[in-house]
Amino acid sequence: MTTKKLGGQTAALACPPSLLSFANVVGKKEGEGPLAACFDYVDTDDAFGASTWEQSERAMQQKALTLALEKAGPGEGQLDWLFAGDLLNQCISSSFAARDQKCPFFGLYGACSTMAESLCLAGMFVDAKLASRCLAVTSSHFCSAERQFRFPLEYGGQRTPTAQWTVTGSGACVVAGKDRPPYLRAVTVGTVEDMGITDINNMGAAMAPAAAKTLCQFFNDTGAKPEDFDLILTGDLGFVGSRLFERLMQAQGCPIAGRHNDCGLMIYDRLRQDVHAGGSGCGCAASVLCSFILPQIACQRLKNVLFMATGALMSPTSVQQGESIPGIAHLLHLSAFAGKEEEVR
Amino acid sequence: MTTKKLGGQTAALACPPSLLSFANVVGKKEGEGPLAACFDYVDTDDAFGASTWEQSERAMQQKALTLALEKAGPGEGQLDWLFAGDLLNQCISSSFAARDQKCPFFGLYGACSTMAESLCLAGMFVDAKLASRCLAVTSSHFCSAERQFRFPLEYGGQRTPTAQWTVTGSGACVVAGKDRPPYLRAVTVGTVEDMGITDINNMGAAMAPAAAKTLCQFFNDTGAKPEDFDLILTGDLGFVGSRLFERLMQAQGCPIAGRHNDCGLMIYDRLRQDVHAGGSGCGCAASVLCSFILPQIACQRLKNVLFMATGALMSPTSVQQGESIPGIAHLLHLSAFAGKEEEVR
Repeated sequence: MTTKKLGGQTAALACPPSLLSFANVVGKKEGEGPLAACFDYVDTDDAFGASTWEQSERAMQQKALTLALEKAGPGEGQLDWLFAGDLLNQCISSSFAARDQKCPFFGLYGACSTMAESLCLAGMFVDAKLASRCLAVTSSHFCSAERQFRFPLEYGGQRTPTAQWTVTGSGACVVAGKDRPPYLRAVTVGTVEDMGITDINNMGAAMAPAAAKTLCQFFNDTGAKPEDFDLILTGDLGFVGSRLFERLMQAQGCPIAGRHNDCGLMIYDRLRQDVHAGGSGCGCAASVLCSFILPQIACQRLKNVLFMATGALMSPTSVQQGESIPGIAHLLHLSAFAGKEEEVR
Repeated sequence: MTTKKLGGQTAALACPPSLLSFANVVGKKEGEGPLAACFDYVDTDDAFGASTWEQSERAMQQKALTLALEKAGPGEGQLDWLFAGDLLNQCISSSFAARDQKCPFFGLYGACSTMAESLCLAGMFVDAKLASRCLAVTSSHFCSAERQFRFPLEYGGQRTPTAQWTVTGSGACVVAGKDRPPYLRAVTVGTVEDMGITDINNMGAAMAPAAAKTLCQFFNDTGAKPEDFDLILTGDLGFVGSRLFERLMQAQGCPIAGRHNDCGLMIYDRLRQDVHAGGSGCGCAASVLCSFILPQIACQRLKNVLFMATGALMSPTSVQQGESIPGIAHLLHLSAFAGKEEEVR
């Protein structure tokens, strides 16, 4: 028996693959936040030894990728496929980082949802025996994102209270057909949702409806309930988007308030670190997942987690043309157990 | 038996999925070229009824997608997953086009290789029973690509002889587990290759080594030879890249000159239409495949075709920073037959 597509948008993974190894790399500000002790590597000046911010982001992604392969252990470094993407135009961080890996490469674009998108594909490939071992990786960098999406840093633009701070960070996971937690038990692949939000400084609001849609879809497809999970973790809704998301779920008769947290609220101390509505970016969900969350699932401190990374699928051009901001959210059911039977033992 | 990953980068599809339906949409210049009679829809002014070029590209992709679904026939319109990508920053053509499809969406970025990348994933998903029916779609538009990658059209910049002309076009395929040609029998997923080319006006040269690498890998993984195929079709190497590609294959002891053609050389009349080294863009490979090639495989005029779309994975920023241009090529073995046994009957 292999993966089964349930009605709707969910695939239940019949032989849940293992997130065999994972690594994370972050910048200085992230290394001064509440999760400081959890990161594998914190850079001292966010440059990662490179001379442009784009090259820094690439170096960071390469470092996360290499660390994840090293942690997988001897003999586990041979990848069947590599799934990667990032926020930069033409995804240059991922393509250039992949250049050194002599590995078949699928380039992805899912905005800030990319860690979940790449893990969905990696998990489905391993479970369907399309691969023994895949790597999923993504990154974002505050300095490269600011000048591409907003203003050059030198301009010193003001930020609105709803704005979020792009995380300088990268996370990488090796997914393999091994019997070792954390397991990936199901994935729900998101649809593109657009409620007409046009404020580029309020991406949490643009993405919250997509998160609510995907989570309801998962519950609907599987029959699971919020109380089956220790934690429902969104990627980078931030303060504004998280409140909206919780209210949307409440309105659907499916309250999650006590169980929900957001990587963008966990990675920084919002009051002390001046990040306004919280962290954002591909690297936000990726680095929190691969530092703070997965080790807790591996040791069963967390038993069942829904990880949902959200993406805002706009571009500066689409915003300038007056378009609203479409959102997407992909969900992973991560577990300390390979199946329901193991849970009750 | 399902898909088997052969050594290297190739997956042989055990129950070859069918390219059940396919559609294509192009602009005015393409509709004046040698393949004019093959296209499903030719727009009169490249605007596709929209008021910006980016919105035109989206409208074009929506039209191709809708046509492919219509051609699939009643009851075949229900998609399990949608795979799409394009050249624009943050892939807005695909994300916005997907907004109207209430379908789980995987956003891809493979530059001009996207039609092959999306079909690889769609084919592997169907063969591995991860899906009954997937759609793969991509697009490019001359006017949106020019202003994003080069100059605004109003500037009237000169073009070098090695430069290529971005095709205004889109192609879409429904891939399903049906017993009807064309079949997708194998895929070879490319690695990122970089021979140090830095001339942004010579993308054919940047991509040719990736095409040669992937093709040699396919022959190596499968034991097949060039003479097993009626046609070896590259996506958009153009005149310069095609000559280089053929010489690279010759140097590998694997001559293909008589069997090779390139979508970028087929879609325009190079002398009459002033396109310099030929066509390029995601829409080049996609629209030629979905108009001129697939119908010939369906009726057995072509029996075995290797379709290889190539992508140049640079961005204007990476070029400005002095980086070379990495290339990638993904290969599909398309056939009028589901297997070797059927061929000899």
